[in-house]
Amino acid sequence: MEYRKIKDEDNDGGTVSNDIENLRGIGFSGVASVSNVPPREQAKWKRKTVVTVALTFLTSSQAILIVWSKRAGKYEYSVTTANFLVETLKCALSLAALARIWKSEGVTEDNRLSTTLDEVIVYPIPALLYLVKNLLQYYIFAYVDAPGYQILKNLNIISTGVLYRIILKKKLSDIQWAAFILLCAGCTTAQLNSRSDHVLQTSLPGWIMAIVMALLSGFAGVYTEAIIKKRPSRNINVQNFWLYIFGMAFNAIAILIQDFDAVMNKGFFHGYSIITTLMILNHALSGIAVSMVMKYADNIVKVYSTSVAMLLTAVVSVFLFGFNLTLAFFLGATVVSVSVYLHSAGKLQR
Amino acid sequence: MEYRKIKDEDNDGGTVSNDIENLRGIGFSGVASVSNVPPREQAKWKRKTVVTVALTFLTSSQAILIVWSKRAGKYEYSVTTANFLVETLKCALSLAALARIWKSEGVTEDNRLSTTLDEVIVYPIPALLYLVKNLLQYYIFAYVDAPGYQILKNLNIISTGVLYRIILKKKLSDIQWAAFILLCAGCTTAQLNSRSDHVLQTSLPGWIMAIVMALLSGFAGVYTEAIIKKRPSRNINVQNFWLYIFGMAFNAIAILIQDFDAVMNKGFFHGYSIITTLMILNHALSGIAVSMVMKYADNIVKVYSTSVAMLLTAVVSVFLFGFNLTLAFFLGATVVSVSVYLHSAGKLQR
Repeated sequence: MEYRKIKDEDNDGGTVSNDIENLRGIGFSGVASVSNVPPREQAKWKRKTVVTVALTFLTSSQAILIVWSKRAGKYEYSVTTANFLVETLKCALSLAALARIWKSEGVTEDNRLSTTLDEVIVYPIPALLYLVKNLLQYYIFAYVDAPGYQILKNLNIISTGVLYRIILKKKLSDIQWAAFILLCAGCTTAQLNSRSDHVLQTSLPGWIMAIVMALLSGFAGVYTEAIIKKRPSRNINVQNFWLYIFGMAFNAIAILIQDFDAVMNKGFFHGYSIITTLMILNHALSGIAVSMVMKYADNIVKVYSTSVAMLLTAVVSVFLFGFNLTLAFFLGATVVSVSVYLHSAGKLQR
Repeated sequence: MEYRKIKDEDNDGGTVSNDIENLRGIGFSGVASVSNVPPREQAKWKRKTVVTVALTFLTSSQAILIVWSKRAGKYEYSVTTANFLVETLKCALSLAALARIWKSEGVTEDNRLSTTLDEVIVYPIPALLYLVKNLLQYYIFAYVDAPGYQILKNLNIISTGVLYRIILKKKLSDIQWAAFILLCAGCTTAQLNSRSDHVLQTSLPGWIMAIVMALLSGFAGVYTEAIIKKRPSRNINVQNFWLYIFGMAFNAIAILIQDFDAVMNKGFFHGYSIITTLMILNHALSGIAVSMVMKYADNIVKVYSTSVAMLLTAVVSVFLFGFNLTLAFFLGATVVSVSVYLHSAGKLQR
């Protein structure tokens, strides 16, 4: 049941915009056949769909890589060094995308890398929140076991919805709120197994930590959206560059705190394999996809996208690894599907 | 987990209208505080609420009686004789209610007992359908075990919805259909346990029988509603009397087919206890409540009512019998609650 790992990923942005722009021209051109919609709206809808589909597939393949790496029995590298490399790669990709844009469009106010203190001062906040959350993760296992933690992480769905409403002041309709509760219940149901009931015996400090972590994770996501959307005309690659620079800095701190000895004794790249490399590449790309979803859609779409990815992963794992699907999985998948339907059926009339 | 037994009951109508009429005057008078609604509509809504609440509580206490009787270790009576007595009691209660009405209002075209062949010819059909379904029940256990059968019985929810649409030609909104799928998924989730996955290994004949039984049960319910609603001015007690007369006849046949030897050797009332008597009384009253719900509400309300009763029973069983609630139960209860909300939020504008 390793596909549960999937919701572990709290990426925060990126820029492989060129690839996605190309996709828009080729494979996905048939998607937006909405009539009675002005071309500008249609292009927006297309872009939103492409980044969402990309995020879903990247998240799904991420989880499959995690299962694969566990099967191969190689998971002995330092996670902090891998996270640092993910941030570095995202930074490099943002710069590469910017270099292409500068060449074709020239340097403008919106795509120049230099920034003001006023603009950049909020950029370290999401990276800092993720750092705190990741450090807390090591302590929560004193109160909850790993499968229990996977179940409790579905609280992220609720915390994201609530903080999205409070911080971004965006409204969801009543039907959409109902759909969001269903999404949380459905995802949890799909992950049920015979040991899941242990979670109900979680002690109060365990619950508090789980809720704090859900809030941190939700806050980081919603705050990232607020930063990226604050200046819509600003090039996403510049915004990503600054996010990732601070991501690199905070992950460097995490290496010092958690894995300093291991890195000093066994080397920075100890335990790395071809799968580790693929995972780092995948994390970087899906981080960038998350950022794109924040820019062109929102946190709600991100949550739906990663939830659907969880279901996709389970189905794919049946074929790849011979996993069995449980009755709970079918029931949870049904509830999640209805939730996706209700989210779109319940759209507020604007 | 005996509270699952609850959905076993396919009652078909009744008449304790006097008691319920009294309740309207006393306990439930505060319920209908809907403003901007004409008094006639308000009275209708009140009546609908009262019969629905009555059905929910009767169904819930039914399940609790079943658990209690199993705990007491006495379940050795013939089920067919008990069913026969339930029909007889319902018949007697209908006649008693009619006698009171004749005294106060006199005999009219709508409350006279005598009937035409044209009116009465359809009345045996629901009783016949239930008989066939109950006989089939003995054969399905060759393919599915008892907990598996409890899970499969949730197919009733879907079959009732589909037949309600087809036979009664009433429309549900898209949101209400979504809610109905959720109700089925939620009820099943609430009943999940470590052995539930067996159900996925059910063989094709097992699935076919389960689906046929769900269709029979759904058809019987929807057909009863069609009969009762065909002549709205007709007194419900007369309608019930004719339904239950045929119920008695078909249950007499069931005694002959299934329990003839036991009744001849051990007597009609062998194995009866105080709990058995309470169960028969409860079945009769909830049968009458079902009939009232068919008259003043519909099959959809009946399904919601019995589903909510299942959840109530589980919660009450925690206090009465020290049952533990599972995580699956909480998730299923959440989904059912959202479904109830969506059913009312998704009402078609008329």
